[in-house]
Amino acid sequence: MTVPSLPTLMLEPVVRAALLEDLGRAGDITTDAVVPLQARAETALVARQAGVVAGLDLAALAFRLVDPAIAIEIDRPDGTRLQAGDRLATIAGPARGVLTAERVALNFLGHLSGVASATATLVDAVKGHKARICCTRKTMPGLRALQKYAVRVGGGVNHRLGLDDAVLIKDNHVAAAGGVKPAIAAARRSIGHLVKIEVEVDTLEQLEEALAVGVDAVLLDNMDPPTLAKAVGMIDGRAVAEASGRITPTTAPAIAAAGVDLISAGWLTHSASVLDIGLDWRQ
Amino acid sequence: MTVPSLPTLMLEPVVRAALLEDLGRAGDITTDAVVPLQARAETALVARQAGVVAGLDLAALAFRLVDPAIAIEIDRPDGTRLQAGDRLATIAGPARGVLTAERVALNFLGHLSGVASATATLVDAVKGHKARICCTRKTMPGLRALQKYAVRVGGGVNHRLGLDDAVLIKDNHVAAAGGVKPAIAAARRSIGHLVKIEVEVDTLEQLEEALAVGVDAVLLDNMDPPTLAKAVGMIDGRAVAEASGRITPTTAPAIAAAGVDLISAGWLTHSASVLDIGLDWRQ
Amino acid sequence: MTVPSLPTLMLEPVVRAALLEDLGRAGDITTDAVVPLQARAETALVARQAGVVAGLDLAALAFRLVDPAIAIEIDRPDGTRLQAGDRLATIAGPARGVLTAERVALNFLGHLSGVASATATLVDAVKGHKARICCTRKTMPGLRALQKYAVRVGGGVNHRLGLDDAVLIKDNHVAAAGGVKPAIAAARRSIGHLVKIEVEVDTLEQLEEALAVGVDAVLLDNMDPPTLAKAVGMIDGRAVAEASGRITPTTAPAIAAAGVDLISAGWLTHSASVLDIGLDWRQ
Amino acid sequence: MTVPSLPTLMLEPVVRAALLEDLGRAGDITTDAVVPLQARAETALVARQAGVVAGLDLAALAFRLVDPAIAIEIDRPDGTRLQAGDRLATIAGPARGVLTAERVALNFLGHLSGVASATATLVDAVKGHKARICCTRKTMPGLRALQKYAVRVGGGVNHRLGLDDAVLIKDNHVAAAGGVKPAIAAARRSIGHLVKIEVEVDTLEQLEEALAVGVDAVLLDNMDPPTLAKAVGMIDGRAVAEASGRITPTTAPAIAAAGVDLISAGWLTHSASVLDIGLDWRQ
Amino acid sequence: MTVPSLPTLMLEPVVRAALLEDLGRAGDITTDAVVPLQARAETALVARQAGVVAGLDLAALAFRLVDPAIAIEIDRPDGTRLQAGDRLATIAGPARGVLTAERVALNFLGHLSGVASATATLVDAVKGHKARICCTRKTMPGLRALQKYAVRVGGGVNHRLGLDDAVLIKDNHVAAAGGVKPAIAAARRSIGHLVKIEVEVDTLEQLEEALAVGVDAVLLDNMDPPTLAKAVGMIDGRAVAEASGRITPTTAPAIAAAGVDLISAGWLTHSASVLDIGLDWRQ
Amino acid sequence: MTVPSLPTLMLEPVVRAALLEDLGRAGDITTDAVVPLQARAETALVARQAGVVAGLDLAALAFRLVDPAIAIEIDRPDGTRLQAGDRLATIAGPARGVLTAERVALNFLGHLSGVASATATLVDAVKGHKARICCTRKTMPGLRALQKYAVRVGGGVNHRLGLDDAVLIKDNHVAAAGGVKPAIAAARRSIGHLVKIEVEVDTLEQLEEALAVGVDAVLLDNMDPPTLAKAVGMIDGRAVAEASGRITPTTAPAIAAAGVDLISAGWLTHSASVLDIGLDWRQ
Repeated sequence: MTVPSLPTLMLEPVVRAALLEDLGRAGDITTDAVVPLQARAETALVARQAGVVAGLDLAALAFRLVDPAIAIEIDRPDGTRLQAGDRLATIAGPARGVLTAERVALNFLGHLSGVASATATLVDAVKGHKARICCTRKTMPGLRALQKYAVRVGGGVNHRLGLDDAVLIKDNHVAAAGGVKPAIAAARRSIGHLVKIEVEVDTLEQLEEALAVGVDAVLLDNMDPPTLAKAVGMIDGRAVAEASGRITPTTAPAIAAAGVDLISAGWLTHSASVLDIGLDWRQ
Repeated sequence: MTVPSLPTLMLEPVVRAALLEDLGRAGDITTDAVVPLQARAETALVARQAGVVAGLDLAALAFRLVDPAIAIEIDRPDGTRLQAGDRLATIAGPARGVLTAERVALNFLGHLSGVASATATLVDAVKGHKARICCTRKTMPGLRALQKYAVRVGGGVNHRLGLDDAVLIKDNHVAAAGGVKPAIAAARRSIGHLVKIEVEVDTLEQLEEALAVGVDAVLLDNMDPPTLAKAVGMIDGRAVAEASGRITPTTAPAIAAAGVDLISAGWLTHSASVLDIGLDWRQ
Repeated sequence: MTVPSLPTLMLEPVVRAALLEDLGRAGDITTDAVVPLQARAETALVARQAGVVAGLDLAALAFRLVDPAIAIEIDRPDGTRLQAGDRLATIAGPARGVLTAERVALNFLGHLSGVASATATLVDAVKGHKARICCTRKTMPGLRALQKYAVRVGGGVNHRLGLDDAVLIKDNHVAAAGGVKPAIAAARRSIGHLVKIEVEVDTLEQLEEALAVGVDAVLLDNMDPPTLAKAVGMIDGRAVAEASGRITPTTAPAIAAAGVDLISAGWLTHSASVLDIGLDWRQ
Repeated sequence: MTVPSLPTLMLEPVVRAALLEDLGRAGDITTDAVVPLQARAETALVARQAGVVAGLDLAALAFRLVDPAIAIEIDRPDGTRLQAGDRLATIAGPARGVLTAERVALNFLGHLSGVASATATLVDAVKGHKARICCTRKTMPGLRALQKYAVRVGGGVNHRLGLDDAVLIKDNHVAAAGGVKPAIAAARRSIGHLVKIEVEVDTLEQLEEALAVGVDAVLLDNMDPPTLAKAVGMIDGRAVAEASGRITPTTAPAIAAAGVDLISAGWLTHSASVLDIGLDWRQ
Repeated sequence: MTVPSLPTLMLEPVVRAALLEDLGRAGDITTDAVVPLQARAETALVARQAGVVAGLDLAALAFRLVDPAIAIEIDRPDGTRLQAGDRLATIAGPARGVLTAERVALNFLGHLSGVASATATLVDAVKGHKARICCTRKTMPGLRALQKYAVRVGGGVNHRLGLDDAVLIKDNHVAAAGGVKPAIAAARRSIGHLVKIEVEVDTLEQLEEALAVGVDAVLLDNMDPPTLAKAVGMIDGRAVAEASGRITPTTAPAIAAAGVDLISAGWLTHSASVLDIGLDWRQ
Repeated sequence: MTVPSLPTLMLEPVVRAALLEDLGRAGDITTDAVVPLQARAETALVARQAGVVAGLDLAALAFRLVDPAIAIEIDRPDGTRLQAGDRLATIAGPARGVLTAERVALNFLGHLSGVASATATLVDAVKGHKARICCTRKTMPGLRALQKYAVRVGGGVNHRLGLDDAVLIKDNHVAAAGGVKPAIAAARRSIGHLVKIEVEVDTLEQLEEALAVGVDAVLLDNMDPPTLAKAVGMIDGRAVAEASGRITPTTAPAIAAAGVDLISAGWLTHSASVLDIGLDWRQ
């Protein structure tokens, strides 16, 4: 399978902004005062716990933007399954630059690896079933493209990137439109041929109504596995079946066993814990 | 105690960017197609779990920037301790705007309330001790000012805002400078009278060296409570004593009992779970 | 059918940038020197030729950003079919502001109405057939969201908004992937459930190959009407049939008659002539 | 004659913005999924119709910003008169980057070459006369500097760059100032010694009034060739004579023959058709 | 004479940036902690020395952007000649906002009034002569439009706004072009009809050469008054005569008496002292 | 002592903005028209008066951003004490780029060297005393980080970088808080352990009150040397003693002799004269 990637062009503004946020109005006053200009650093990014790495390009960019003389060699690229102790990359160059960029580099790397690792945990949990793991629009403001990328790195797929690339009709849309049927019809009239329509349903009655009109996908919200299985049976391949609501590594297998195509979880992006990665200095 | 606040001027660029990130290149195609222009929404932000609210101004701004006709009334301002079911604010106005802004508003509100709630949990855990709870520079790229604010809302205080507002001498700085003493001396020569110096120490020997030269604060990294107590005794009020490393609501009380002034935890900002807050529509 | 719209939030940065581009480093030196501060303007935006209006919100914003005291009343909103002489809106207020904003307002209005009118001409040309009119990614740099909007206003639909919201496999992709089949398979593995796949085909053989694997849409490039009709027959409803290449109001009817679902034309956005709209001053 | 040029510094922000506009929140999902990382592209920019090329630096920048490993060699630089089939440049490097940048590169190149070619057509039409061809402020929002540059590349000259670099007194300014004379006097009082004053006149009476006061240039709006000739005679070298209004390659020769110094046309920038340029892949 | 002005649109980004530069990552921590939310301020901007005020709109904007509830009434608008003790404006509203915005407001007001006052001093020094006072491109980075405006407010006129709005041929241009004559000829070929040409000359021989070819203005650099008088005689009205080099209120009268049209001084913008303006609180 | 420095990352956006401000919408029309593409420049930055250089990295960046082919070699880095005639750096490369970037490079270099030189003059004036020289927040909008840097280069130290990195309680804060004591108490409650508190006092009574509560620093505003000496005696090492108000090279020695720790002066940043540095062309 193709390894996901994002062009540097998309990463650079975010990394620059993060560095400037940290440098403030006087730069790294500790390092500038304390570390000799000619001091060199030989360091390595090392995993302190198991997980999936994501964000190495951002970390590398942080170091390079602070000092282009810093050399970075990546040992285990994004997507690698890590064990505690694994070396991800070596970072060598002027000590000042390495120290100044370190925190920002780790902030990107730790968070995105956290998202990728959380995704991989769910992916592993549903192994053997056809269900794929998917994220939501519950992302950190300003970091959506990066978080969506980390989900792909972790083996998941993306839901909508934003409000404009697919139609997702939720309960309040249905209420405002006067029903599932008129809502879908209105959407269909205004969208292009490359836009899909998904409808959120809370009950099997709503599902029936949606299937009657025809949609590309249905979001089966907060249903238990037996209901999900019934829903999958009703759908019978006519739409993508997505389950959401209270998804954890523990609950996911039963949900996947119900036969859904997709399991989506907001916490992958809004509540993933950091993956502990450190920068070790060679003695 | 004064309620923390940030001027709208600081919030607006972040909220605008988050909305544009979500709107993409065609806006909210679902709502625009499905919801009648004249439909109105009467909604309320409601806590689905207990915690401390933070970010209401950002949420309100998200709604107002999408449609200035949306009226927001805040019932429980930032800093309020919430119970599940508590109403935070009412949001009323054109349904299209409310639906379009909803996700971004909740993304800010859920995350920042998550940070504030995590902080409050640690604050509660050390109640009765003098120790205050503190964050780090392990923040989400682009969101530092907001996360630091959320920590204050939760009852904590801020560590450095960035690399430029205080000196923090870590092990690698010490190594590069050739010792704690020359490192502190170099820092002192270059900083102004309003900048404080903190030194990270891993052992009581290092602490002794730092105290001999004199510093404003010492970061006692990864010491167990008995060692911390010894360190506090050695410091004897001559510097702020900050403990860090593996801080949880469970470990915090013993650490606080050791007599430190400050307990800092990176996970408050890098791994806090979202606080579940929803937007309920009045039937 | 719902009238398309874009939130002001998406328009404002573009209008601001356009005004600043025109104001340069000294503002409107003619108006500031020549027109008395208290002079008032009573003006109207008037169509000088028939067409479809698009961009009134941008024009209004240009006036308001220069001087909030300028009052704008829209008589014929975006999407209206205009006759020469029709009044679109009245613009009244301080003469200085009206004169300063006039050119930028008209630049937006004329261009976007030009795009909408060109679209409407093609829409009219295929009336009676099921084919819808569609734009491409051949847009003016920086103006994609606005041009895509103008196409919708003119009665057309949008193709991809960018590189990230749908898969479009072209000849060079096929060559690099080693065939239509492996290309589609590779795409399918990496995308989410809301992303569609379209393949460009130049021959009926390629079409057959694509249909065998299954795709959401096929782009039938530069085929004549008889070949298109054959292609439509082969497709038989299993994919959206899009025709492109040398589309004009003259050629479009025969292409539509071949039974395609969609006709796309790059010139709607890269070569549309301005619609002549002027600002008339009341004597 | 010197070949016009713009520093990369002015081009880069526009090219970056155009690429990010296209890349959206997930990048080029087709190419990333379908094209192997190691695939290489050997391609050439080729003119599909005759014209004047403009924008090669922008196209080259688009490729380089996406992937610095892409090598670009320019065969026919901006300003070259092209025949259909002429090769403009060779573009070689990683296939992914070439495919990702292609559309944005061509959007710049096609549009700016279109502007340059339209200009050259008018320049050719008035050959043998002293009249020079000139653009207006009727430009695409955000692209003024580039379009003005393309006009220079096509052999034309620029009118005002914006509202701040010259005084242009139009009919509504005259009306507000209470006549041509007070308008010119007011302008003269406030401007520096490097700013010129031009006045728009619709009749020979107005022209007489303007000449009486003295101006640097007169804009003879919508006059027929005989009237223009009379105007030129009245002016008698005391001011630059500029003709505007309904300028086409067909009408331009007679207007030039009337002896004007300058012929300006808004459509060069607001309605120029794209010049068809393609990216050919070497088999 | 018309009072100069700049649209708010041009001021707002600069004021916003200045406020954010001051607010940093935590806002006004003193005011937020110390001043009660409901405290009100009744204050006045008062001149502490004589001069010419410039920048009141920027100061007002600083207060309003921090808190729209702050009311500003301007007593003496930009361009007013002030005596020490004169009240410029009253600023009343929430004390927090007034305190937070105060420094930024005064920074703009003090500096721009300093520039305007320096200009006025030179204007006064040459009273009775035809010479006008002019600035240069020696401006503070990022503040050119504002400083140029302040010069106009002080009664001066602007030289070039930048590199693109007029031709100024200096000694190194002449050297590179192979003489004054070819330099002017080359410039003339490439510029439009609204762009003027000025040539810097150090000697009367160079002046003669320039006059022979014909230029709009000559920059007589570092000549003493007798030489200037000779130069003015040679020019005899055929070009604008600009004197520059070591201009002070003391030297200016003799230079003006030599008959030049324009006297330009870089220090108006690069070395003007602040005008002392304070914010007085009503007891 | 460590030489201060700022990462290029912090300089680049400011230099880019300054260049774009100067290039406007058409670039350097003089140089582009007049100077042959292949002309080369061999130039040197030379001090025309004595002082301290600051800003060479910014000047170098200006040249490099305009043309990366320009080679810069720095002879006397930031912080060097210059004599008139000293060469700072050699700048060699394409003449066009050198001419285009020259003014912006010199604007940065002249201004920042002016700030550094003014600082050094005060530093020299207090030599032999313990007092250090300090700047304020009275800075040029948008240039604070650079000006603060120039103060450090000149041998001074920085006061607050902004409103957020230290508490400075002024008279109006005291009034609003109801006294020095409650003001300090309120501040102490809300700040972190790395933030210092300074209080402005106008009288010895206020000083006594501040000392009773305990603060990190006191700003002794506008006191004469005898009063300052008394204040220093009262403080007796319990707080940093900062003197401000009417500081000049003439008044500074007596103020320093009074025993204060710090002398701050706003004019270092708001009214420093440019240091005259020129770009000499090798014949």
